[in-house]
Amino acid sequence: MFEFALPFVVIVSVIALIVAAFLARSVLSQDEGTPKMREVADAIRVGAEAFIKRQYSTIAILAIILAVVIFAVYFISGQQQLAIDTALAYLFGAFCSAMAGIIGMSIAVRANVRTASAAQTSSGKALDISFRGGAVSGLIITAMSLLGVSLTFYALGANPTETPFIIVGFGFGASFVALFAQLGGGIYTKAADVGADLVGKVEAGIPEDDVRNPATIADLVGDNVGDCAGRGADLFESTAAENIGAMILGVALFPVFGINGILFPLVMCAFGLIASMIGILSVRGKDDADPMVALNRGYYITAIIAAIFFYIGTMWLLGNIWFFYAGLVGIVMSVVFLRVTLYYTDHNYRPVQEIADASETGAATNIISGLSVGLETTAIPAIVIGLALLTSYALGTMSGIASGGLYGTAVATIGMLSVCAYVLAMDTFGPIADNAGGIVEMSQAPESVRKRMDRLDSAGNTTKALTKGYAIGSAALAVFLLFNAYMNDVAHLISKPFTTVNLAAVPVFVGALLGAMLIFLFASLAIRAVSKTAQYVITEVREQFKDPAIMAGTKKPDYARVIDITTVGALKNMVLPGIIAVAFPIIIGVTLKYEALAGFLMVGTIAGILLALILNNAGGAWDNAKKYIESGAHGGKGSDAHKAAVIGDTVGDPCKDTAGPSLHVLIKLLATLTLVLVPLFI
Amino acid sequence: MFEFALPFVVIVSVIALIVAAFLARSVLSQDEGTPKMREVADAIRVGAEAFIKRQYSTIAILAIILAVVIFAVYFISGQQQLAIDTALAYLFGAFCSAMAGIIGMSIAVRANVRTASAAQTSSGKALDISFRGGAVSGLIITAMSLLGVSLTFYALGANPTETPFIIVGFGFGASFVALFAQLGGGIYTKAADVGADLVGKVEAGIPEDDVRNPATIADLVGDNVGDCAGRGADLFESTAAENIGAMILGVALFPVFGINGILFPLVMCAFGLIASMIGILSVRGKDDADPMVALNRGYYITAIIAAIFFYIGTMWLLGNIWFFYAGLVGIVMSVVFLRVTLYYTDHNYRPVQEIADASETGAATNIISGLSVGLETTAIPAIVIGLALLTSYALGTMSGIASGGLYGTAVATIGMLSVCAYVLAMDTFGPIADNAGGIVEMSQAPESVRKRMDRLDSAGNTTKALTKGYAIGSAALAVFLLFNAYMNDVAHLISKPFTTVNLAAVPVFVGALLGAMLIFLFASLAIRAVSKTAQYVITEVREQFKDPAIMAGTKKPDYARVIDITTVGALKNMVLPGIIAVAFPIIIGVTLKYEALAGFLMVGTIAGILLALILNNAGGAWDNAKKYIESGAHGGKGSDAHKAAVIGDTVGDPCKDTAGPSLHVLIKLLATLTLVLVPLFI
Repeated sequence: MFEFALPFVVIVSVIALIVAAFLARSVLSQDEGTPKMREVADAIRVGAEAFIKRQYSTIAILAIILAVVIFAVYFISGQQQLAIDTALAYLFGAFCSAMAGIIGMSIAVRANVRTASAAQTSSGKALDISFRGGAVSGLIITAMSLLGVSLTFYALGANPTETPFIIVGFGFGASFVALFAQLGGGIYTKAADVGADLVGKVEAGIPEDDVRNPATIADLVGDNVGDCAGRGADLFESTAAENIGAMILGVALFPVFGINGILFPLVMCAFGLIASMIGILSVRGKDDADPMVALNRGYYITAIIAAIFFYIGTMWLLGNIWFFYAGLVGIVMSVVFLRVTLYYTDHNYRPVQEIADASETGAATNIISGLSVGLETTAIPAIVIGLALLTSYALGTMSGIASGGLYGTAVATIGMLSVCAYVLAMDTFGPIADNAGGIVEMSQAPESVRKRMDRLDSAGNTTKALTKGYAIGSAALAVFLLFNAYMNDVAHLISKPFTTVNLAAVPVFVGALLGAMLIFLFASLAIRAVSKTAQYVITEVREQFKDPAIMAGTKKPDYARVIDITTVGALKNMVLPGIIAVAFPIIIGVTLKYEALAGFLMVGTIAGILLALILNNAGGAWDNAKKYIESGAHGGKGSDAHKAAVIGDTVGDPCKDTAGPSLHVLIKLLATLTLVLVPLFI
Repeated sequence: MFEFALPFVVIVSVIALIVAAFLARSVLSQDEGTPKMREVADAIRVGAEAFIKRQYSTIAILAIILAVVIFAVYFISGQQQLAIDTALAYLFGAFCSAMAGIIGMSIAVRANVRTASAAQTSSGKALDISFRGGAVSGLIITAMSLLGVSLTFYALGANPTETPFIIVGFGFGASFVALFAQLGGGIYTKAADVGADLVGKVEAGIPEDDVRNPATIADLVGDNVGDCAGRGADLFESTAAENIGAMILGVALFPVFGINGILFPLVMCAFGLIASMIGILSVRGKDDADPMVALNRGYYITAIIAAIFFYIGTMWLLGNIWFFYAGLVGIVMSVVFLRVTLYYTDHNYRPVQEIADASETGAATNIISGLSVGLETTAIPAIVIGLALLTSYALGTMSGIASGGLYGTAVATIGMLSVCAYVLAMDTFGPIADNAGGIVEMSQAPESVRKRMDRLDSAGNTTKALTKGYAIGSAALAVFLLFNAYMNDVAHLISKPFTTVNLAAVPVFVGALLGAMLIFLFASLAIRAVSKTAQYVITEVREQFKDPAIMAGTKKPDYARVIDITTVGALKNMVLPGIIAVAFPIIIGVTLKYEALAGFLMVGTIAGILLALILNNAGGAWDNAKKYIESGAHGGKGSDAHKAAVIGDTVGDPCKDTAGPSLHVLIKLLATLTLVLVPLFI
């Protein structure tokens, strides 16, 4: 089976990369639009590429420093071969994650202008181009993650029951890159956005995406580096973490399933990739139809095919129907998470309408109402996660296999992540559509083109919000796998069972308290980093607005300068929260030791999931309450309610696009970090 | 020792009640001010008493229903005597808590006008009256709590190692009353405040506490029912919970210390009461001096005397110096918590100044900055709590006694709560001074009187913020004791050891996730309850403002109507969050059983402590940023920065005065509830 399963995974990954290349070629062959559009798009592309180049240079330096630390930790504990393997796996993981993000984004910054151009004639074609552009990202990220884990397994594969413990290095590399990619990108995008809005919309009273605003291009660059590259790295890591965590659980079941149990996650991920490809290719835009209909249809197709493949794969490799049911739990959970997020952030439902109503009495009540909604949004997702864990555990237990329960939760996670590539395609479609809207606006295209783009843009906002829900749900499950991997790893090292994390012990309780605290502190620092960077942008935009020629529209503002300032600011301000996120768990682990660190990790994860839900959903709800009012409710644009809603939207920006998504990454980072550095904590 | 220790506790409690009566008489003998002042004060008093009457009628009904449930749970599990004892202890606890709150508040609503009157001639005398008014509350609450636990112990005391498990009923009664007292009072106070501000200050543009605003009296009533009665019930419960939790740990140490270990918490609490009385009587207001100097001096006197008594008490009852050191940890922690809260909420330090700076760029940046500060404020308190637990545990271990570590944490808690009566006096001083300020404003007293009151009012705001920090710190420690009590109780019932709460087990992890979720959901519901109730107030005030005679000041607005509407609204809207808080843990316990419930409880507590810190401190910082700007910074009153800061202040209101304080109570309620209903979860 080993001889067949691993090549199967590699072949499917390579096919996915070929399909991605084919989609990329089809996108790139489209018309690049009017010279004005091209001018705007070129500025965005150059800005995004400049940021990414500098960002990944910074990340590379930090990553290499940490590689040395990892090497030293293992080397000093006397495990030379492990030191080399883990450090190399780590660097390989970091490299794959970075490459996947960079390639995906480089297609996205070319798909935007082609979408804008297509919108001149057909909204269906515009959807096709932007979604295919997103699909390139989705396929490359998922395939690279799968290929990376498989190749690492293959390279190290002398002893298949030892190897998964070394591959955690790969996962940690991916986490590390993801943290800084999401944090840096998130700070960039919101600093530019807040800066552009506060000086442009609020102080100078000019519309959003107005050509006179020197921060608009930076704002559009931000969509790519934050939403596209950042979330890509996030889900790259989720896939890697899930595969690794499930493989480690597979090791525990080696006596039952042999190598099949270890390779099962990779094979199922490959099957999921096939399902996603079919789903992606099934999406066809239609003129005058709601783009969400086509996107949702593609999603359901993917989910159903994934479920069928799940049956085949489970029976083939495990021969136990109960694990198929557990996998279904995960697939169903992915659908439920999307629906719940929709409920909380769509203007057709109570929460957003409540915020819009509250805007009538001013900004204060708008904010209070949004806070209340954000806090409330933890309830159903937490219950769903809880039910999914309990159900899949129970189903796994019914399999009749010893410790089948935990493997059941692993299979549920695999099920949830099997639709990952499709979800990522929807996600990256968001910033492409958003950018295309910006390009249409800035190139002063006719009203009809703008209208077409508005609808696509609005669908992009929805998919962005939905995929954040999916990302946090899958992160929760993936991290739960990693807990068990951590405990297995510790047991491995201390050569005795480690099965209880006793919260009633004082050090464990203190670890748990500090784990939850780190989440809040990190969110605080991420939000503050946006404020600080936005201040630089505000100062620069105000300075440029002093030139009357810029305000009159006769002189082009200096877009590049704002891009440059935002880049430098974002990279500078991402370092402190990033380093605290890495250093703090190490300090706890070294002082309070492995059991307390497990408490730290688990309760930190719980707090992280819940706070991320709050920040993402409150931000999304504020955003859509504003859009709802702009569509004419409560007095429409320019009314007092609208002014209040704009304030709520601005408050939500750093929550939903910087702190929230960075928390997804943080909780996975904590899990992979503790796994990799485990010799320090014994 | 039994013969001596318990009478000592009872005698000290009675002395404290006598001193309280003496202080009350001295306050009541003061001048009641001008007829105009009396008119305002009468309206406040009538409103507060009407609310309290209706509130406690509602609470009584709910409490009796629950008493029946408690009785049934024990009766069905075949423990008839326990059923009667627990239900009676529960009702007695509820009764004592209610009485303490009602008596304290009835003095406060009489001290306010006397403070206002004294401010006509002397700011020192005004401080004396208001602080002594607060001291009546502080002494009565602490003494009643101590007396209640002691008498229950005495009444049930046939078997001293069984009795503490029954006294938990008393603690649960206190928790139950506290939850609704704090929630109802908190909703009332902020609904009136937000309603008065939004229509008065923002829409109609009239100053705060203006006589024309029909919601001003309701706002002043709110200070009494929320800050005074609510926080009183909160700390009544902390003291009770701490005593009970420590007594149960004392049972575990019965072989070592005998009855002394069980009575130790009560005796030390009595000693603390003596120290607090000395501290209270040492406070003497001086004209033209900062009131905080006198209040802080009194606090340090109390802390030092408490430390000396701690040495005496520990050597007398336990004869082990290490527990004295553990107690010192608690006393030091109380000081540190006050300092940290001061740092985060005082305008002399970075956090508040940062928020004030951010107000320059508008409401959105003000809010973002406040959110960031709020999230940040979890860091140092969490580390302090962690260090206090680890240190006192280590000190307890050094005592050389088996399971001395946990008893060490208990002694630290006792140390922290030994200054409780003094802290409560400072706390209740806040709303009295605030009310007196309102009375001075509404009775249109001369400028010099207002200036005197402003300084006292500002000190009151500071002490209110500080005592919230103290309340959450002491709640954290008290609840940690109750965890262990819960585990002992379960072990007792299942007749085998129960020492591990294994977070790595799926049901426990799910319980933990849902525990944290309940905290966020509860906060959401509490905030929404304020919004809803405020809407009623807004509608009514707008209605009254339509009468031009009211706006011209020639006709008195209908204060009573607003009071009535707020009362009905607050009581109606407190029921849903209250019932969820009680029902949800029961559901979890019944379905997932006792170990998962322990996870629920512990992680819920962690989340509760941190979220309460965020809400309290962000709210306090927003409030003080506004006051700082009003004092002339960033353009002063009426500037754009001020407008932004007013919005931040309004957002902070339900956070710091409703949701935050209710969370202190909630985490204690969860702990006592699980303890009392433990037979359900086996």
